Amino acid sequence: MAENYHLRCVNCQKEYEKDDVQYTCPDCGNRLGTLEVVYDFKEKKWIDEAHTGIWRFLPILPVRETDIDEHLKIGDTPLYRSETLAGELGLSSLLIKDDGKNPTASFKDRASAVAVAKAHELGYSDIYAASTGNAASSLSGVCAGTGVKAHIFVPQNAPEAKVVQQLIYGAEVFSIQGNYDQAFDLSLKKGEEKGWYCRNSAVNPYLLEGKKTCALEMAWQTGLKLPDYIFVSVGDGTVYSSFIKGFSDLKQIGVIEKIPTVIGVQAAGCAAIKQAFDNGRPFKPDDIVNGDSEADSIAVGKPRDVIKACQYAFETGGFFMTVSDQAIGQAVIELARKTGVFAEPAGAASYAGIKKAIQERRIEKNKTAAIIITGNGLKDIKTPVKYLSETPQKIHPD
Amino acid sequence: MAENYHLRCVNCQKEYEKDDVQYTCPDCGNRLGTLEVVYDFKEKKWIDEAHTGIWRFLPILPVRETDIDEHLKIGDTPLYRSETLAGELGLSSLLIKDDGKNPTASFKDRASAVAVAKAHELGYSDIYAASTGNAASSLSGVCAGTGVKAHIFVPQNAPEAKVVQQLIYGAEVFSIQGNYDQAFDLSLKKGEEKGWYCRNSAVNPYLLEGKKTCALEMAWQTGLKLPDYIFVSVGDGTVYSSFIKGFSDLKQIGVIEKIPTVIGVQAAGCAAIKQAFDNGRPFKPDDIVNGDSEADSIAVGKPRDVIKACQYAFETGGFFMTVSDQAIGQAVIELARKTGVFAEPAGAASYAGIKKAIQERRIEKNKTAAIIITGNGLKDIKTPVKYLSETPQKIHPD
Repeated sequence: MAENYHLRCVNCQKEYEKDDVQYTCPDCGNRLGTLEVVYDFKEKKWIDEAHTGIWRFLPILPVRETDIDEHLKIGDTPLYRSETLAGELGLSSLLIKDDGKNPTASFKDRASAVAVAKAHELGYSDIYAASTGNAASSLSGVCAGTGVKAHIFVPQNAPEAKVVQQLIYGAEVFSIQGNYDQAFDLSLKKGEEKGWYCRNSAVNPYLLEGKKTCALEMAWQTGLKLPDYIFVSVGDGTVYSSFIKGFSDLKQIGVIEKIPTVIGVQAAGCAAIKQAFDNGRPFKPDDIVNGDSEADSIAVGKPRDVIKACQYAFETGGFFMTVSDQAIGQAVIELARKTGVFAEPAGAASYAGIKKAIQERRIEKNKTAAIIITGNGLKDIKTPVKYLSETPQKIHPD
Repeated sequence: MAENYHLRCVNCQKEYEKDDVQYTCPDCGNRLGTLEVVYDFKEKKWIDEAHTGIWRFLPILPVRETDIDEHLKIGDTPLYRSETLAGELGLSSLLIKDDGKNPTASFKDRASAVAVAKAHELGYSDIYAASTGNAASSLSGVCAGTGVKAHIFVPQNAPEAKVVQQLIYGAEVFSIQGNYDQAFDLSLKKGEEKGWYCRNSAVNPYLLEGKKTCALEMAWQTGLKLPDYIFVSVGDGTVYSSFIKGFSDLKQIGVIEKIPTVIGVQAAGCAAIKQAFDNGRPFKPDDIVNGDSEADSIAVGKPRDVIKACQYAFETGGFFMTVSDQAIGQAVIELARKTGVFAEPAGAASYAGIKKAIQERRIEKNKTAAIIITGNGLKDIKTPVKYLSETPQKIHPD
């Protein structure tokens, strides 16, 4: 474990000792002042081969070895290379990171594992999360069997499969008769009141560290030959930031020279981060969008991690773009048929994004790229069916 | 690849050159005469570290290296060790093989991969399968992007998620307005008429070879320290047989001395193989059961691979048992809460089985055991919900 870290506010840059502040910057408050974990990197070690999955990167995670729980295998998800799609898109190569193969079938397990390790370290027996669905299913599954109880706040329109996961795993589930943004606000209130540990990514600085393991894993899987572009869907903004954080850490250690361009793909109806980024500096998080999207995981009107996402994008040449719900629905089907990877809508948004970016010449041809599949297609089977032209042919057995 | 193999009828023991017969024994016919693949094992090599997943075992698979397609990562699924469950059950250790982490979320990908490789070898562009659901979803997903078209025959009551997978992956889906047994018969008729390659496990001898990779993988993952008992759910009987086939191959090569006792768990309403086995030798496949089960993957009234399953069990000390649908439903929930592994009903039947076997003293205490999770819980979210006592608590955002 890295003992050698402190916290820094992404807004005012003030630094804090890790024992002095638990969640956000006291000066800047909840929406502005998310903290990032800063290491001194005196040791250049980033891999510990004694572990697999996300814990392979324990040397640059803010977690003690004694607090990790390896009862589920998180990370080590496939990184596929699709020559078919690369050819069609005019890229020299296209990688597909299938993070839907995590234990609860989403990327979010990476963060939940760190949250539960932190709960152990700090002596919490209860932990809560507001979520469009995946973070909650993930927390529920990762808590199962650990003795830490998960309390979940999801909007009423969360896909059935995600809510079933939460209940089956034994979490306490509050179905908020409103949207994700309301579920988030309510979770903070109730969580604080009850004294539960917080697994909301924009609030708890350690979750980004769990999420950054996807970037680290891609570096490890490619032998540090990272793609030029990485496309990932964006809701609250933390998943987007986590890629840049992972690569930045590796750059600081000195194992890579260049941080890939990370492109954040938002649903057209929920593009608050793109809006904030395009409005320019100083980035402001208060452009609330009252839209919606069928891609439930990124249907976020009031994103919680705007500043960090915009700042990181600005510093590294990244940018944000939007795709329509129809493009996302069609991307689910096309990706599945061409590669065998069945993604949930938000997962396939990255594929819809790269197609649009190439069409609009927002990225260069003959480069290398990767798309991140943040959740498995079985998480939401209702949405893509709307975009299918085929139905089963009913046949009488005689 | 192993070029050194021939085929042998499990019923009359007659041997055939691999080029002389394609599917079943001409003398014994479809239901009796399933063929097994017999190797000469002159070379003791069973692992090829140039490959990962199921292709690691290419030296003892009937597939040429040039025909394999590694565009999806099949196999290398987690093998968890649960101290909690081992303690509760009075076992010295309990392993959980989570095969729901395969690309299409079921064990069946292991067989589909071999079927598609064989289709390549034999020059087929079309392949068909009858299936309760998983084999069909698997074939559809494994065919996606390979240029081989999948044609699927599923019963009308197949879970929605499995049918959606098939359609999304681009297969042609026939929904048979009857049960699995009728879908199977119809598939044979239509497949033969159209000249499509057959991916029905009891018919095509090579599919068992794909399935046996789960046993080989467990041998590899445990460093050849295999558990005393292995519990796996049983529908047609091929998955059951595949474990014994895998271990038998390893015993013949000389890398293990003893074949674990494999216990087949059937749904109480569909226990035709248990019935045939308990009736004794000569084993007969004609005890058709007109029952049903909520565990759709093993809701098979007229199993197609009875002789092989019974023979293999008889030769190695294995046996069959039944569990109720209620026990299966509760096993889904209990397993998820205690281990974080969310299984589909048929997958959790193995856990229901080991609990009952211990209660009824059908296996010894303080031994080592494994349960095989054949499919992920997201494949069927309707069934376990019936056994939940909790529901989400609806809360108004104010």
